[in-house]
Amino acid sequence: MKINVMTDVLEANDRIAAGNREVFDRHKNLVLNLMSSPGAGKTTLLERTAEALQGKLRLGIIAGDIETTRDKERLDKYDLPVVQLNTGSACHLDANMISSALPHIDLASVDVLVIENVGNLVCPAEFKVGEDFKIMILSVTEGDEKPLKYPLMFRESSLLLVNKIDLLKYTNFGLKEAKANARKINPGIEIIDISCITGEGIAEWTAWLSGCYQKKFGTNSRA
Amino acid sequence: MKINVMTDVLEANDRIAAGNREVFDRHKNLVLNLMSSPGAGKTTLLERTAEALQGKLRLGIIAGDIETTRDKERLDKYDLPVVQLNTGSACHLDANMISSALPHIDLASVDVLVIENVGNLVCPAEFKVGEDFKIMILSVTEGDEKPLKYPLMFRESSLLLVNKIDLLKYTNFGLKEAKANARKINPGIEIIDISCITGEGIAEWTAWLSGCYQKKFGTNSRA
Repeated sequence: MKINVMTDVLEANDRIAAGNREVFDRHKNLVLNLMSSPGAGKTTLLERTAEALQGKLRLGIIAGDIETTRDKERLDKYDLPVVQLNTGSACHLDANMISSALPHIDLASVDVLVIENVGNLVCPAEFKVGEDFKIMILSVTEGDEKPLKYPLMFRESSLLLVNKIDLLKYTNFGLKEAKANARKINPGIEIIDISCITGEGIAEWTAWLSGCYQKKFGTNSRA
Repeated sequence: MKINVMTDVLEANDRIAAGNREVFDRHKNLVLNLMSSPGAGKTTLLERTAEALQGKLRLGIIAGDIETTRDKERLDKYDLPVVQLNTGSACHLDANMISSALPHIDLASVDVLVIENVGNLVCPAEFKVGEDFKIMILSVTEGDEKPLKYPLMFRESSLLLVNKIDLLKYTNFGLKEAKANARKINPGIEIIDISCITGEGIAEWTAWLSGCYQKKFGTNSRA
């Protein structure tokens, strides 16, 4: 008898993720699973997003980290519902962790829930958490060949944000090559260049968010 | 009965790692397990190291990647023994993967073997592969709080290379804070600032390598 532990683990995870998804749909939450390498700019993006969505869509955040509550501390100044999940040593969030966080966040007050995954370009892509979309950040300091070397996350993501575009001129990152590589792995992936420092692309990103909300719920906002 | 799968996996891995270590010692190899986030500069560091060690210590490389042979292609121009390991979907190298690579590299011709791990700041730190030292790269574009958020790798590493120091002035990375954070996690960690673009710190890094070789084998070189 061959025991495929990973298949069993993923099937159990998918069942719990489907349960989370039902909860989110009932509360009219658009849910995004935000993934990237460590330091690609997930938390800074959420800071800019909180500012840009003010008075439009109500943002909520579940922030996953192995240790520390630094992300929550950075996000708390925006007066949003933020839950910090510490995974201990786990290298990704899974559906069960998200399920355990749900009692700690008022989903009825949230339009867009972003689940900020552990910084890791590999493992998070394997685990659904109940999201509508997986999205990811690649920063230009990481190198333009990353879609080919870490294909699963690029394959799973609906949107790729190319971040730190303000640093492009100081690197040997080929922006065209990076996008061609990403589309080789996932021809349908949408791509937006952004800088959380200069603000470039942030309006385009929040328009993408509003568009997804509109498509899912047929309205621009619940307010 | 409680089955602790992870403990069993790590114990089995440690046994195979000890076997690899015996093979390395017999061939008089100093072995380093090089870890970092994706895009922190592992392969570029190996390019600079190959140049700097020419005529001194003989370098060999086992390059781990989920997919592609790009790292091997970049390193092949240096006329070194280079083996590319593709892990398929595995997010780290383990001792068994390294064991399977050993028949493909002429260890008798190698003084310093660098095992370039999969780009991942989390999982590789849990798995010994038979190395003398774990070492790691943190690039300044990743953020100075990373030692606190991803403590295991900083705890396990003997040496921290702070890379892309040439980009420091374009970031909000606090160099002192990063080092203090690393030393809070691992008071004995050695730290060298480097730039693989300007060459800053590369001589200090290769001196560190030579010192380790000298300490292990009582000589500066086998040649």
